[in-house]
Amino acid sequence: MPIKWLPEGKVSFLDQTLLPHEEVWIETSDYRVIAEAIRRLQVRGAPLIGIAAGYGLALAAGAGEPVETAAKELRSTRPTAVNLSWAIDRCLRAVDGVEEPREMRERLIKEAVSIHKEDVAANHRIGDYGAKLLSADDQSILTHCNAGTLATGGYGTALGVIRSASANGRLCSVIATETRPLLQGARLTAWELSRDRIPCTVIVDSAAGSYMRRGEIDAVIVGADRIAANGDVANKIGTYPLAVLARENGIPFYVAAPSSTADLSLASGDDIPIEQRSPDEVTSLRSEHIVTLGLAVQAENPAFDVTPSRYVTAIITENGVAKPPFEESLERLCARSSGPQARESEVPARG
Amino acid sequence: MPIKWLPEGKVSFLDQTLLPHEEVWIETSDYRVIAEAIRRLQVRGAPLIGIAAGYGLALAAGAGEPVETAAKELRSTRPTAVNLSWAIDRCLRAVDGVEEPREMRERLIKEAVSIHKEDVAANHRIGDYGAKLLSADDQSILTHCNAGTLATGGYGTALGVIRSASANGRLCSVIATETRPLLQGARLTAWELSRDRIPCTVIVDSAAGSYMRRGEIDAVIVGADRIAANGDVANKIGTYPLAVLARENGIPFYVAAPSSTADLSLASGDDIPIEQRSPDEVTSLRSEHIVTLGLAVQAENPAFDVTPSRYVTAIITENGVAKPPFEESLERLCARSSGPQARESEVPARG
Repeated sequence: MPIKWLPEGKVSFLDQTLLPHEEVWIETSDYRVIAEAIRRLQVRGAPLIGIAAGYGLALAAGAGEPVETAAKELRSTRPTAVNLSWAIDRCLRAVDGVEEPREMRERLIKEAVSIHKEDVAANHRIGDYGAKLLSADDQSILTHCNAGTLATGGYGTALGVIRSASANGRLCSVIATETRPLLQGARLTAWELSRDRIPCTVIVDSAAGSYMRRGEIDAVIVGADRIAANGDVANKIGTYPLAVLARENGIPFYVAAPSSTADLSLASGDDIPIEQRSPDEVTSLRSEHIVTLGLAVQAENPAFDVTPSRYVTAIITENGVAKPPFEESLERLCARSSGPQARESEVPARG
Repeated sequence: MPIKWLPEGKVSFLDQTLLPHEEVWIETSDYRVIAEAIRRLQVRGAPLIGIAAGYGLALAAGAGEPVETAAKELRSTRPTAVNLSWAIDRCLRAVDGVEEPREMRERLIKEAVSIHKEDVAANHRIGDYGAKLLSADDQSILTHCNAGTLATGGYGTALGVIRSASANGRLCSVIATETRPLLQGARLTAWELSRDRIPCTVIVDSAAGSYMRRGEIDAVIVGADRIAANGDVANKIGTYPLAVLARENGIPFYVAAPSSTADLSLASGDDIPIEQRSPDEVTSLRSEHIVTLGLAVQAENPAFDVTPSRYVTAIITENGVAKPPFEESLERLCARSSGPQARESEVPARG
């Protein structure tokens, strides 16, 4: 797993910007280091940044710093993945009305560790559901970005499904799109699958359509950063084209995500905030400069896109598989975990 | 223009692998340097590699080397763009039956220079036809890879249309996809448009769909490496997804190419050979290594894809605009220039 709570009250996380070249673990007792790690994508992936934010709150309480201030800073790091706010809200609820510093600290540690453990368990359940959903003929799976161990508390969402299918002897190979600009597919997904000895072929993002058209892809599985009530899915930039191309070629398009990724307070994906990151990520290939800006030339860097639910075959959650119409299926499977909604009405768990 | 025939019997070409950082011109009197430049993409773009091959044959004759040997080597450099074979065949026809070395050399120079001049003139005509085809509302044009001055004898095909539209005061701005793996969009298209002061925004390839869905693209224009008789278009990898996404979003998808790009001897795009280039281009970002191969991980690097003609709104040639059904319109507009066909039957020009 890419993050750990250490018994001495510190957090240790893997700096994902240095993979696959170096495995550097960073230890900190300062929540600001966590916030900066989320901003810089040293720690990334919707479920993982929620977990990291929970640990950040525990660090703040341990250092005797105001938890509300830490919550505000952590919440501001990235706008699109709802898991971040979901985890922060859940931790704050756990200390609602608590004044005593030691109790606050212990409750926050307990809640953050629970969020982490529950995420790993959820991913295994997602893997089981997803592996059953894939047909025996689904031998070659395309995935985008990294929705693996490195994006979660462990095991992964999309890669969790791939791992479970592979463990069942069903899956032959993975096509991993490199995922410009930050290359999470080339750097992280290939690294993870290599360690599991799951055959993986890396291609440039724009080659995916051609592989689909030639019949070399049996299914597409991606993670998600936020899912609206109608099933619209915000995920890494480049997800929407894959969904359109999959439908055009008669290939199922699956989204694998814990129910904490559902934001049932949003009617559609049009309301999901899309993070605009620095154009530097586009204009530079890591260290090397590739676009000369100025003189009429600029660059833009939206980090996510929204895939309308009509392109989504199914959404695989830890509570089961949601199929269209998503308004109903997501409400049934995800209402319990949906941040704002659960917070306001405390509806009992269903399903 | 990116290549020149020098009066002293040499060829000078711009090394496009070094752009936009350095403008390095290479002078040579050895056709093998031209062949290697085509292979390494120092000289690239379907029309330009045809022109370069013509000059290569003239260099071989000037050095007293067998022209047929040079033709074989030049023809073998890259398989997809038909302009290469078309230009070589045309030059060989020009010296058919000629024995005298000096006459052979002079005829080859004349033919290569003609091919070059005709290409520039064709691109201006393509620009005029294309600019008329664009509606006054087509304010934001997306283009992929580089189909500009740098890909042709001068002016460009897709960028020729953009230049003509811009000169008519019709075009506001260009969205340029960076075009992984070799970044011809980010490096070359941005560089060209910057010199012409045409506003250009560089995005990663996988962001194009999202821009189309949000209504920020009015038309897509690309070049082509080979067009089959039915209108199927082979072009830079990533073209097919753009065509599918354009149709899905109700955006016209135009191909701009000289008639020498049509290969009417092929019934459909399924017969077009697709170059597989080294996976190194994917696994390394220029100098930096980004994918760790081995242990189940490999990479693939198809350089082109085929866009079925049903996604193509129109093909803009120097002889006019071909619209569906393409079997008829291409036959009418391109039969004259189609290499194998013209060579076998010498049909008179039409249209």
